[in-house]
Amino acid sequence: MAKCNPRLSANKTSIRGVVGELLGMTNPDMPLISLGVGDAASFSCFRKGKADFNEALIDAVSSSMFDCYPPSYGFPFARRAVAEYLSKGVSHGISEGDVYLTVGGTQAIQVCLTVLASPGCNLLLPRPGFPPYEAAAELAGIEIRFYDLVPSRDWEVNLSQVQSLADENTIGMVVINPNNPCGAVYSSTHLQEIAETARDLNIPVIADEVYGHLVFGGSRFVPLASYAHLAPVIIIGALSKRWMLPGWRMGWLALCDPCGTLKQVKIATEMLMNVTSGPASTIQAAVPRIISDTHEEFHRNVLTVLETSLNLLYSRINQIEVLQCHSKPRGSMFMMVEVNTTLLYGIENDMDFAKELIREESILVMPGSIIGLKNWVRIFFGISPELLIEACDRIQAFCKRRQI
Amino acid sequence: MAKCNPRLSANKTSIRGVVGELLGMTNPDMPLISLGVGDAASFSCFRKGKADFNEALIDAVSSSMFDCYPPSYGFPFARRAVAEYLSKGVSHGISEGDVYLTVGGTQAIQVCLTVLASPGCNLLLPRPGFPPYEAAAELAGIEIRFYDLVPSRDWEVNLSQVQSLADENTIGMVVINPNNPCGAVYSSTHLQEIAETARDLNIPVIADEVYGHLVFGGSRFVPLASYAHLAPVIIIGALSKRWMLPGWRMGWLALCDPCGTLKQVKIATEMLMNVTSGPASTIQAAVPRIISDTHEEFHRNVLTVLETSLNLLYSRINQIEVLQCHSKPRGSMFMMVEVNTTLLYGIENDMDFAKELIREESILVMPGSIIGLKNWVRIFFGISPELLIEACDRIQAFCKRRQI
Repeated sequence: MAKCNPRLSANKTSIRGVVGELLGMTNPDMPLISLGVGDAASFSCFRKGKADFNEALIDAVSSSMFDCYPPSYGFPFARRAVAEYLSKGVSHGISEGDVYLTVGGTQAIQVCLTVLASPGCNLLLPRPGFPPYEAAAELAGIEIRFYDLVPSRDWEVNLSQVQSLADENTIGMVVINPNNPCGAVYSSTHLQEIAETARDLNIPVIADEVYGHLVFGGSRFVPLASYAHLAPVIIIGALSKRWMLPGWRMGWLALCDPCGTLKQVKIATEMLMNVTSGPASTIQAAVPRIISDTHEEFHRNVLTVLETSLNLLYSRINQIEVLQCHSKPRGSMFMMVEVNTTLLYGIENDMDFAKELIREESILVMPGSIIGLKNWVRIFFGISPELLIEACDRIQAFCKRRQI
Repeated sequence: MAKCNPRLSANKTSIRGVVGELLGMTNPDMPLISLGVGDAASFSCFRKGKADFNEALIDAVSSSMFDCYPPSYGFPFARRAVAEYLSKGVSHGISEGDVYLTVGGTQAIQVCLTVLASPGCNLLLPRPGFPPYEAAAELAGIEIRFYDLVPSRDWEVNLSQVQSLADENTIGMVVINPNNPCGAVYSSTHLQEIAETARDLNIPVIADEVYGHLVFGGSRFVPLASYAHLAPVIIIGALSKRWMLPGWRMGWLALCDPCGTLKQVKIATEMLMNVTSGPASTIQAAVPRIISDTHEEFHRNVLTVLETSLNLLYSRINQIEVLQCHSKPRGSMFMMVEVNTTLLYGIENDMDFAKELIREESILVMPGSIIGLKNWVRIFFGISPELLIEACDRIQAFCKRRQI
């Protein structure tokens, strides 16, 4: 029997494994509604004004100019478009040479963590969090230390805990803003506090801004790069969310390093990118038109539909006695909901809740324990409002039936 | 200063680094002709009959059905198309469930080596070889042991050396067929000997068949999977070479394991693919039409042009006294040429040869020492015959001028 990587065989329960198990329990008599994993791109309600994205790609394909290998870090014109996009309104501009195009945000995470990994190091991750960080850290041999997001403080980072967790082997802290899975959008004040903490700890901030600009209700998205004079920022982004193109697998890693702290990181990133496959040339070629043009109709519609779904979900959840959303999301496409299991018959924890709900009502939600928060569930609201109403009806009926 | 992965900072001279240095020496008065790195897709002479590939992709984009995330291992219909393609004429068929779609052949190499890596392990690689294997092995912490390809035996594998290099920590042997960089196409007899050796050593064969079916002069490509009853085969392939679509970044890893030796490898591969970004959905969607249809006109033209360029290069090289091609390539797009430096003024080795040649004649060739063979150069012939004539004229003029 051939040997294998122990970091892979020792891997714990994956989010996909749990989702697979849950999906296997779907009630065969009812159509499934997935509020568990996030792919808004499948809903036609988000497609208004999106035709130009397809046209940009079709033009690139038709030109036959992009059948060739792309350069290791991406085509300069595409890197420049991303750099200009990331520099808007940020005093520390990001230059073309500091942008690396990746196969979605996922590859950006893997490149970043592989580059930062060294023997005995550790990384600070938010809890609840986004599981691909854990997976990439485990694969790179990085010890994970979780800091908490505090529900009673609109899911802000517990910064005193960050300070106590960090030591001389800490290689960075990941901050997800707008936040997946809590929907928080951090204020300028809080972002500055985060950057000051990173400065005091002498670590870079890994700013996952994949949900950048997907904010509602008067909130404002402030890029962490605004505070790069305090601590260097490694930005992770993608076309997957704001432009609703996850299947195009187009993301980026960008360094905002006005003090020159990341020189070695830059060299190592380039060494890794030199031997790694990046995104398809054809798709890179479409980036400038997608990211530089305003596409106002498209973005306005996406935000309107998302906010409609969010408002609907928030009001319906808080009508259900056994469920509670403590802090209404102001960004991203996720809401964390606490489950009062003591009031539910035959349900001891969030996993039971998710299993019974899909078994009876064909509704998939993500058990919070998988992402670090027991007896909470993560609910995705990037779906059409009509379908969400149906989903809320079923969740409400289920909770009513099970309530003691 | 932020810390970095020592496996990246300790990285030795990369092929891209050397190419970059050489390109910087180009004679500014002459247009560059690159015979150093291989991207045939940029030449219009290979595009005849290629329009349907673009149409397949454009249809996928236009449908708006493929903006969503692809499944972790690839869309089932695309995996099936690859499985059927790989199974043609092979007694041990490859099933859809054993195919994993990757971001080009490069990601397939990285996934394969990451999966097989375990502490203290080693991997057998061919010399001369394909540098991405070394890079991926170093990153995964795998010790590399090189076995030689023997020029006097048409670049066959030195199997007695393979046997003496392997031990109980050997995780596999990489076999590239058709061979990059030597152009060898191995006979059934030799492939069976390779499989028997792997069987005796109890290791899988990693069969890099990225140049599969790109064979000329009456040669026949025999997939290593034909001998999977002797030793399990991990197949690496891509659309990059045969279909001339390297920029689409579409490849695959496939397991041919009739004896069930790779069960753990399969589990670990799936764990890794679950947390890794694969190729774009739109591009996956185009795979069946590209790979299943015959596209006779396209493939016939590619082989005709390649063989014309090969014949031209072979006859011209062997007219030059200081250069010698010992074994005419029968596949791939590369030829290894020995340089008799003792007959050349001011040239002590292959690196000098490459530097002086690009400085004087703006011709880029790959120094053999970078791929393990000192005083040889690797010449790419996947270019238009017209341009190759010009390149040969310049190489000949350079050698004549420098000959002692």
